[in-house]
Amino acid sequence: MTDQERSEEKSECVSLSPMREAVPAPPECERVCVFGTGDLGLSLGLRLLQAGYRVVFGSRRPRSSLLLHGAQVLGHAAAAQSALLIFIAVQREHYDFLVPLANQLKGKVLVDVSNNLRKNQYPEANAEYLQSLVPGAEVVKGFNTLSAWSLQNGPIDANRQVYICGDSVEAKQVVMAVATKLGLSALDQGSLSVARELEDFPLQLFPQWRLPLRIAIGLSAAFFFYLLIRDIMYAYVTQGEDISFRIMVSLANQVCPIVSLIMLSLCYLPGVLASFLQLYRGTKYRRFPNWLDSWMLCRKQLGLLSLGFAFLHVLYTLILPIRYYLMFWVTEHTVSLIRENRTTTFDTTTAWRGDSYLSLGILGFGLYVLLGITSLPSISNVLSWREFSFVQSKLGHLTLLLCTAHTYLYGWNRFLSSSIYKWYTPPGYMLCLVLPSVVLLLKLLLITPCVDRTITRIRQGWERGADQRNPKDSQPLIP
Amino acid sequence: MTDQERSEEKSECVSLSPMREAVPAPPECERVCVFGTGDLGLSLGLRLLQAGYRVVFGSRRPRSSLLLHGAQVLGHAAAAQSALLIFIAVQREHYDFLVPLANQLKGKVLVDVSNNLRKNQYPEANAEYLQSLVPGAEVVKGFNTLSAWSLQNGPIDANRQVYICGDSVEAKQVVMAVATKLGLSALDQGSLSVARELEDFPLQLFPQWRLPLRIAIGLSAAFFFYLLIRDIMYAYVTQGEDISFRIMVSLANQVCPIVSLIMLSLCYLPGVLASFLQLYRGTKYRRFPNWLDSWMLCRKQLGLLSLGFAFLHVLYTLILPIRYYLMFWVTEHTVSLIRENRTTTFDTTTAWRGDSYLSLGILGFGLYVLLGITSLPSISNVLSWREFSFVQSKLGHLTLLLCTAHTYLYGWNRFLSSSIYKWYTPPGYMLCLVLPSVVLLLKLLLITPCVDRTITRIRQGWERGADQRNPKDSQPLIP
Amino acid sequence: MTDQERSEEKSECVSLSPMREAVPAPPECERVCVFGTGDLGLSLGLRLLQAGYRVVFGSRRPRSSLLLHGAQVLGHAAAAQSALLIFIAVQREHYDFLVPLANQLKGKVLVDVSNNLRKNQYPEANAEYLQSLVPGAEVVKGFNTLSAWSLQNGPIDANRQVYICGDSVEAKQVVMAVATKLGLSALDQGSLSVARELEDFPLQLFPQWRLPLRIAIGLSAAFFFYLLIRDIMYAYVTQGEDISFRIMVSLANQVCPIVSLIMLSLCYLPGVLASFLQLYRGTKYRRFPNWLDSWMLCRKQLGLLSLGFAFLHVLYTLILPIRYYLMFWVTEHTVSLIRENRTTTFDTTTAWRGDSYLSLGILGFGLYVLLGITSLPSISNVLSWREFSFVQSKLGHLTLLLCTAHTYLYGWNRFLSSSIYKWYTPPGYMLCLVLPSVVLLLKLLLITPCVDRTITRIRQGWERGADQRNPKDSQPLIP
Ligand SMILES: Cc1cc2nc3c(=O)[nH]c(=O)nc-3n(C[C@H](O)[C@H](O)[C@H](O)COP(=O)(O)OP(=O)(O)OC[C@H]3O[C@@H](n4cnc5c(N)ncnc54)[C@H](O)[C@@H]3O)c2cc1C
Ligand SMILES: Cc1cc2nc3c(=O)[nH]c(=O)nc-3n(C[C@H](O)[C@H](O)[C@H](O)COP(=O)(O)OP(=O)(O)OC[C@H]3O[C@@H](n4cnc5c(N)ncnc54)[C@H](O)[C@@H]3O)c2cc1C
Ligand SMILES: Cc1cc2nc3c(=O)[nH]c(=O)nc-3n(C[C@H](O)[C@H](O)[C@H](O)COP(=O)(O)OP(=O)(O)OC[C@H]3O[C@@H](n4cnc5c(N)ncnc54)[C@H](O)[C@@H]3O)c2cc1C
Repeated sequence: MTDQERSEEKSECVSLSPMREAVPAPPECERVCVFGTGDLGLSLGLRLLQAGYRVVFGSRRPRSSLLLHGAQVLGHAAAAQSALLIFIAVQREHYDFLVPLANQLKGKVLVDVSNNLRKNQYPEANAEYLQSLVPGAEVVKGFNTLSAWSLQNGPIDANRQVYICGDSVEAKQVVMAVATKLGLSALDQGSLSVARELEDFPLQLFPQWRLPLRIAIGLSAAFFFYLLIRDIMYAYVTQGEDISFRIMVSLANQVCPIVSLIMLSLCYLPGVLASFLQLYRGTKYRRFPNWLDSWMLCRKQLGLLSLGFAFLHVLYTLILPIRYYLMFWVTEHTVSLIRENRTTTFDTTTAWRGDSYLSLGILGFGLYVLLGITSLPSISNVLSWREFSFVQSKLGHLTLLLCTAHTYLYGWNRFLSSSIYKWYTPPGYMLCLVLPSVVLLLKLLLITPCVDRTITRIRQGWERGADQRNPKDSQPLIP
Repeated sequence: MTDQERSEEKSECVSLSPMREAVPAPPECERVCVFGTGDLGLSLGLRLLQAGYRVVFGSRRPRSSLLLHGAQVLGHAAAAQSALLIFIAVQREHYDFLVPLANQLKGKVLVDVSNNLRKNQYPEANAEYLQSLVPGAEVVKGFNTLSAWSLQNGPIDANRQVYICGDSVEAKQVVMAVATKLGLSALDQGSLSVARELEDFPLQLFPQWRLPLRIAIGLSAAFFFYLLIRDIMYAYVTQGEDISFRIMVSLANQVCPIVSLIMLSLCYLPGVLASFLQLYRGTKYRRFPNWLDSWMLCRKQLGLLSLGFAFLHVLYTLILPIRYYLMFWVTEHTVSLIRENRTTTFDTTTAWRGDSYLSLGILGFGLYVLLGITSLPSISNVLSWREFSFVQSKLGHLTLLLCTAHTYLYGWNRFLSSSIYKWYTPPGYMLCLVLPSVVLLLKLLLITPCVDRTITRIRQGWERGADQRNPKDSQPLIP
Repeated sequence: MTDQERSEEKSECVSLSPMREAVPAPPECERVCVFGTGDLGLSLGLRLLQAGYRVVFGSRRPRSSLLLHGAQVLGHAAAAQSALLIFIAVQREHYDFLVPLANQLKGKVLVDVSNNLRKNQYPEANAEYLQSLVPGAEVVKGFNTLSAWSLQNGPIDANRQVYICGDSVEAKQVVMAVATKLGLSALDQGSLSVARELEDFPLQLFPQWRLPLRIAIGLSAAFFFYLLIRDIMYAYVTQGEDISFRIMVSLANQVCPIVSLIMLSLCYLPGVLASFLQLYRGTKYRRFPNWLDSWMLCRKQLGLLSLGFAFLHVLYTLILPIRYYLMFWVTEHTVSLIRENRTTTFDTTTAWRGDSYLSLGILGFGLYVLLGITSLPSISNVLSWREFSFVQSKLGHLTLLLCTAHTYLYGWNRFLSSSIYKWYTPPGYMLCLVLPSVVLLLKLLLITPCVDRTITRIRQGWERGADQRNPKDSQPLIP
């Protein structure tokens, strides 16, 4: 027992001190086989050795290669026979060498750790292909989200969790036990048909963020140039003034809130459109058009990006008073008041407007942050469906309302003064009010009692015209 | 194999493109039965079809209804016999139609997806009632936290996770496999006795937040009116001045910190009271009174709400210098200095006080945020018990101390000047200092060595008087 | 059935109202045995009673002790025989009383709930020792992360989740079922060999944070004294001015950004060093030296602490304009302008510099926060390996670049003016630029195409000199 204990001790330390010298495991340890001596195969073998397993590599030329101190190298057939668990760390193209081994592999657990270079590279998942080649074995897909590097170095944070899938519960349990010993926590994702999803997982770099990011960048660029021309070029052309320094803060602080508000309304527009579509169709049992579907599926990302812009807007606003520019002009203003012996009077309306404008912005931002917090996976998981949609839908529309009102108060009566339409273009904050106003108006329509009643019934499954439906002319709901 | 592969492919896409046209599944697919053709039944059927299952609806009038393109409709008995897994998507009142089907349902897995309209509507959980009606079948409760809508549209974030429970492990595994295919992750919550909890889950809208929210709203309203009268009405009545614009920022920025500090002390008061109660009783093995119990159970929510108010306070404070009001008076002040040819001298004490006041506030807020972060489920789950209570208890009291000191420094020597007691009422920040001061004093008492020793022993299970207890007059600890 | 239902109802409420009077459970309830009548044993028994179990305490003197109203007390042997599940709540030193009970314990599930006082107190885990004493029983380790207190009071947040491990899957399922009934969620961590890790878990108080915290405190103290002498003492000694009030905000606002920037570069330095080491060695299959290993393993904590300091820096900066000090000097400045009849001109270069400096800081802080958000466990778990390292590595270096540029712009041309070298020492911001500049330079070297190509190949498993390796003189990769 003492021997085993000591080996256990070692296996636990592994997760902390990676890449330690592998020592031969004591004889009573479990044997695991690794096919493939590439980067991943070696790393896997090393890690298994460290965890106290006896490792057998399967190789075409067994005698030639002394790979890891402590690991055995055998021919494919012998290696396959020596262990219950076999990691297949070779590329899919070479899987067919396993076909002649069908006899030795019968009843064995094969772990397919392979990845592809791009999505849909092959008609079926690698693991399913492997299973079809060796129907007698139990194939488990897994570990493919790990890089060879993180196997050697102890898993980093994003890698503690590995996903596995397979058709045999027992086989999965064998694999999970090994995962646990390696310091990983394996999550069973279901049957082998999930394998393709697992194989695609490491290929993606924020796939759902692409469209929202492009929208954000596009909008930012467009408004940046618009404001650059309207504010800075205009001043230069008409008054010969160089106020280019305003790009860094003033311009940024215009672009951020504009993009944020537009993206926030883009986040709530599809929901409103969907409601009208349902009203128009009189049923909820018909699919939305594709563009609406994909739009609705990226609302989370749209919302979080718009929160990011709002956050920058807040920071840019808060540093205003420590800018040289502002400090200079405040002093200048006071000095000129005295030199010209003018007096100013306190204007209560301006105070009301200014304070309301700031207060609405603060409350809006507070709700914004709340939306962001509830969209953290660990929070949204503990919320019930009603709670989540209360926050996201109800409070979300309230956020939009507050932020829109904030912008209107910012504009105030300047909307009417013609002097602000430089070169006949409206200022940025005016442009960005269009979309949110439309969304809010449409939403207002939707919550008027009569419309609301219809939409509620439709959402509960009621269909216009369906009441009179009789058995004879019944139509399938989904054609 | 290729046919099946293609069908697998489809089933995976489902989670992304909802509401797609359902096509008849290939013949080798598993068969699933759905009883009930209401909103939820239809949505379930549709989703199952999309995931590649063959769906059979059980109906009273099988011939009449052609429900979903690709789904079969049979009589109840025939439908029950056709599949192992049967979703019961009818209302509890109609469950008794299942009694005559007892024979066909023997050994089948029945999934109870029902919900109630309110808590405790029936003496026992629907799923338990179902089990009692059909004792031969294996009832699994589950999927009831999903809305029909999210079934059709692919689960939204709060809905990826579904909870199931049941007495048969095998039955639960069958259900979990289906859940995984539908793109959901099912969590096994234990035996069927948990069903009631699952049935109550979708009914609740932030049940634990109600009391803290009411306290927050009550306190905010009370202090709002108090300050409205004391500051704004007072100025109007005694000096005829209209400073009503101060409501938006100045007043809000008084209410927020006051409510925040009071709620923070409400968060640490019950712990102190509990300690004194334990000291007084000389044991920890007696239940706290009900009010103390429920108070202690909503401390998390109290704390998070008070963090919210603190956050608003920070924002309101930071925008002070860009308010028209402040800018106006700073200019005015400078102008008057010059016109009246006065000079000012820099007062080091004021500078010390002001800077300390700000610095304490910043540090307090930093700790506040830290408390908030550790109360995120994903963080508190990776903390050990000692770590969590170190942060929440030790650093929590430190936060309270810093915030209280911040408020005292804000008041400074104004506490003594009688001019601030307008209409004989103390200013808001003075009122809100009472509770935190009491909590801190009591806590100070508790950590004096002699009291601390006793409380520590009590917490370790020691009981006053228990040492002499002898076998004869032993009393049950809990009467 | 009704009886049972009622008891079920009670068991569910338990998690909300702790410490309720325990009532004898109805006879059809499951029986659970607890050995040990200390604090933990009693608390466990109480909680089990509340959850509807029948509890049997095993005691040396069964007649003497009437412990909990509703619980039975039997001799050890009788108690052991009465139930399948036995909690061992005695200290490891007394485990040997179980040896004579070997017969009665055969096939029983023993739950070892013990903890030790310090790490590595015994050569093997308590649970493994228990298993060796009673080989016929199934030992499961678990519940040891709960305190007796939280058992009585319903689990608090950090305690909902309990970890169990054991060699028998059935035994673990029995234990998990009980855990679920007690309102806990049990996570299976694998075989009994994990027990030591579970036993160490409650002993640790932020073990991974120690080194980073010490670095942070050390750096803060060093820079605090450095700046205290250089700024405040210097002013006092050379000009007799007392500017000690600056400690609270000005000094703090210098220490925070300095420590933050240094710790951020400490966070990216080891990665760069590791790359150079790999380049030099020409392989990635050799272990890094110990110091580099442990350094790399605390980068997360280093990074999060530096984010904390950056957060304080932001707050300290934003409150600058409401400081008495600043407001005084702004007024003073204006007054003197007028009295001395000076005029100022707006300097575009200063405006550019100031605004760029602020803007870079804001963007840097935004990225900083993003890094912090992705390091939340619930976020990093949903990111793939590529996504996580894209954010942490690519955006992390960008953050370092922005923050370093922010500091350079802050210094601007002051680097050259000799007047700032008071007492021949450079100002703090200059000192703190050394490390980040070095890290960025080295990183720049690494991403030059030729170096990058080599390092990429090395990371893919290529080894310098390995190409010519022939079977005969092959060396084990890990010596
Ligand atoms: C900071 C921030 C974070 C965000 N995080 C998330 C996030 O984590 N996850 C997320 O999904 N979104 C997120 N969003 C986006 C947005 O808040 C949500 O998508 C929100 O739910 C949209 O609400 P809605 O009322 O417009 O749409 P929905 O509630 O989706 O409703 C849209 C339409 O769908 C139909 N419909 C809705 N419910 C039903 C029903 N029960 N029966 C029948 N038909 C129905 C109706 O036609 C309805 O009008 C976030 C936004 C922000 C600003
Ligand atoms: C921003 C913020 C977030 C918060 N998040 C959370 C959260 O997520 N979860 C949460 O629970 N609270 C949360 N809180 C509330 C608060 O921080 C915690 O409840 C904190 O643990 C209270 O500490 P305490 O020392 O007053 O109470 P406790 O540590 O609960 O102690 C209270 C009393 O219970 C008894 N007691 C405690 N431990 C023992 C023991 N081992 N043995 C015997 N008796 C004992 C003693 O009598 C003690 O005085 C939050 C607060 C804030 C401000
Ligand atoms: C706010 C904040 C939060 C943070 N949170 C975290 C966190 O949660 N988790 C965390 O780990 N860090 C965290 N960090 C620290 C830091 O961001 C990360 O450690 C980051 O990954 C370091 O990047 P790097 O490129 O320097 O190092 P790495 O990506 O670790 O690379 C270091 C070296 O290892 C070697 N190497 C790396 N990858 C491979 C490979 N595939 N094959 C072979 N060799 C390789 C190379 O020699 C490389 O130079 C955080 C930092 C901050 C500021």
